[in-house]
Amino acid sequence: MSQPAPHIDGARLLARLQTLGTIGALDGGGVCRLALTDADAAGRAWTLDRMRELGMRVSVDAIGNGIGIYPGETDGPPVMMGSHIDTVRTGGLYDGNYGVMAGLEVVAALRDAGRRTRRPLAVAFFTNEEGARFQPDMMGSLVYVGGLPLATALATRAIDGPTVGDELARIGAHGSAPVGAPVVDRYVELHIEQGPVLDRLGLQIGVVEGVQGISWTEFTLTGTSNHAGTTPMDLRHDAGLVAARIAVQAREIALRLGGRQLATVGAIELKPNLVNVIAAQAVLTVDLRNTDAAALAEAERALFAFADRAAQAEGLRCERRSLARFEPVAFDAALVDLIEAQTRALGFSHRRMPSGAGHDAQMLARVCPAAMIFVPSVGGLSHNVREHTHPDDLVHGAEVLLQVVLQLADRPE
Amino acid sequence: MSQPAPHIDGARLLARLQTLGTIGALDGGGVCRLALTDADAAGRAWTLDRMRELGMRVSVDAIGNGIGIYPGETDGPPVMMGSHIDTVRTGGLYDGNYGVMAGLEVVAALRDAGRRTRRPLAVAFFTNEEGARFQPDMMGSLVYVGGLPLATALATRAIDGPTVGDELARIGAHGSAPVGAPVVDRYVELHIEQGPVLDRLGLQIGVVEGVQGISWTEFTLTGTSNHAGTTPMDLRHDAGLVAARIAVQAREIALRLGGRQLATVGAIELKPNLVNVIAAQAVLTVDLRNTDAAALAEAERALFAFADRAAQAEGLRCERRSLARFEPVAFDAALVDLIEAQTRALGFSHRRMPSGAGHDAQMLARVCPAAMIFVPSVGGLSHNVREHTHPDDLVHGAEVLLQVVLQLADRPE
Repeated sequence: MSQPAPHIDGARLLARLQTLGTIGALDGGGVCRLALTDADAAGRAWTLDRMRELGMRVSVDAIGNGIGIYPGETDGPPVMMGSHIDTVRTGGLYDGNYGVMAGLEVVAALRDAGRRTRRPLAVAFFTNEEGARFQPDMMGSLVYVGGLPLATALATRAIDGPTVGDELARIGAHGSAPVGAPVVDRYVELHIEQGPVLDRLGLQIGVVEGVQGISWTEFTLTGTSNHAGTTPMDLRHDAGLVAARIAVQAREIALRLGGRQLATVGAIELKPNLVNVIAAQAVLTVDLRNTDAAALAEAERALFAFADRAAQAEGLRCERRSLARFEPVAFDAALVDLIEAQTRALGFSHRRMPSGAGHDAQMLARVCPAAMIFVPSVGGLSHNVREHTHPDDLVHGAEVLLQVVLQLADRPE
Repeated sequence: MSQPAPHIDGARLLARLQTLGTIGALDGGGVCRLALTDADAAGRAWTLDRMRELGMRVSVDAIGNGIGIYPGETDGPPVMMGSHIDTVRTGGLYDGNYGVMAGLEVVAALRDAGRRTRRPLAVAFFTNEEGARFQPDMMGSLVYVGGLPLATALATRAIDGPTVGDELARIGAHGSAPVGAPVVDRYVELHIEQGPVLDRLGLQIGVVEGVQGISWTEFTLTGTSNHAGTTPMDLRHDAGLVAARIAVQAREIALRLGGRQLATVGAIELKPNLVNVIAAQAVLTVDLRNTDAAALAEAERALFAFADRAAQAEGLRCERRSLARFEPVAFDAALVDLIEAQTRALGFSHRRMPSGAGHDAQMLARVCPAAMIFVPSVGGLSHNVREHTHPDDLVHGAEVLLQVVLQLADRPE
């Protein structure tokens, strides 16, 4: 072969990330490009232009997913890279955007080297991954794989009023491409970890084996408001106390189950929330996560049983509703092995790990072999304007992505 | 004696309470006469007029305490009845107002019977007992007994801006009488219980032996905000968890100390208070009360030590500040015995009990023998527009007050 080997141009990748980060930039750092806002529209237009510059065939579907195809030597399902370019209200430069820009850098590296792969390559950005403005999150990829009817998604109303359909039309982001096309051969998503594990361990690459299952439950405890100074302890129906017992128990359950069980009580609201009044009502949320489906279900059972008992003992009514529930997703074992092998071949330190957050890759995993590559997040910070990943780590991640994609796209039938 | 015995006119007492309750009445029930507002001014003027109608000598002092004197056969320190006529924002008809109107009914009963007591009688309403607009509560009686300098009280700023001095001047409620005059012989305060004990036990009268000590502490716990899905359990600094541990421990301490120890966590605020974010900060209040000073101090020690340990174990900073601290007050034993004897003589069911809430009587107890009489609160509700006491109970309480006051005011030197 006389062609030079394709290689990642780190400076170009970093410059692209910085430029994209100027769209919707916040004073003092960070980015706000909430899904389907004007800022998101500008980010989409800029990204589609970058795809066209690379000679990609661009399409946008009815839910606004944007896909660029870089033709291969043969037709057929592409190897897809991608992620999302919407952000939370106080987001960083890299969450999602990194996976899309790195995908474009892989294509640019091939183009610079005058190289085509056997199969086509695709780079996708999926609509409303964050779910910060429209629920559910991962909406575009969920519609893409048939997990949510298009009509339902289009009718979803934003926290600020309009529907997804309204906003797609308003910003001109509704395309004509059939939803779910093209059929995808393999999906690889490069992403910042958004957690502290790689940073703490001083590792360069996370080989992501799957995505944790998530169970969000809201408990509403109803007792009786009474005077803190005149109500004997044995006559109380204290909603605040039982909320506290549930929060403490959530931690106990996580420690007891061990492994990768996580439990968080992030939100508690008492009413009337006064120093000298026993709370009549408490609303709290419990976020349970595990990579193991059976353990996650066991954590839920233990928590719900405890809450019922604790509420009954205090004479409270206990209601609960599920705010979100996703089973764990295991990524394709062969693809995970391939990522690990390529990481090792490039000499990067690494570990296998689950993803703690949800990602578009877990939706694509329903229709094709999929996996993810993580790079470290400094201090584990994410969804935070102080989100940061060292430039070297960003470049190394793209180098792994390039090698994995070359292996996948060039593999014999 | 040819004079008829003085007796309480129940219908007149109830009518007065209803009329006073029309001043500052809330739509749908209840009253709002926050201290030194226009509504409070109207309530004060109406009450002073009732005193004058009864032939009482009326004075108002520099902190706005209103006092009517009904002359006795001799001069000298009066036997004082009283309470307050300010209310919380969503108050009932009886909290405080009952003690003042019942005092006036005692005077009316004596006048109707053409009777004077050996010592003068006084009926007082003390400024800003509730503390709902100006801190501290029980302000007027605290100034009266010399526990708070007048200048400090006048400079106290309301939650809505002006000072006590500003508002006293604005509504014309600042009087010229010397603060702390007259010297009081005995003080008896009739009040609704504001708790569930008498109502639950089906008793008519509470013979109040003292007022609980109160300790209010605000804890501020500072940890690290992080992603609930990506932060391993052993790397967390979860302020919400430690807030919950403290709330659970407060209940444990109350149960362990037993007796009359009360503990309430009525207010908890988490930041950012989101389902999937570990709380970076928690602010919670703990309300501890006990009639026993040593036990109250022990509860504080145990709570503070626990909070420090729990915060340290989670890697949090724990700060605390005292929001209020009052030692328990024991009422005059002879006066408590007298109240019990008169209650028994009238044939009312009763029990000795502490007051769970603070009252002006605990301030007057610093300068003279003082005690209180309670009547039941239906369901224990207070500081609530649904506050209610059965009319018969209101009349019975006034009958006890009359007999106690006659005994005190007519007693030989």
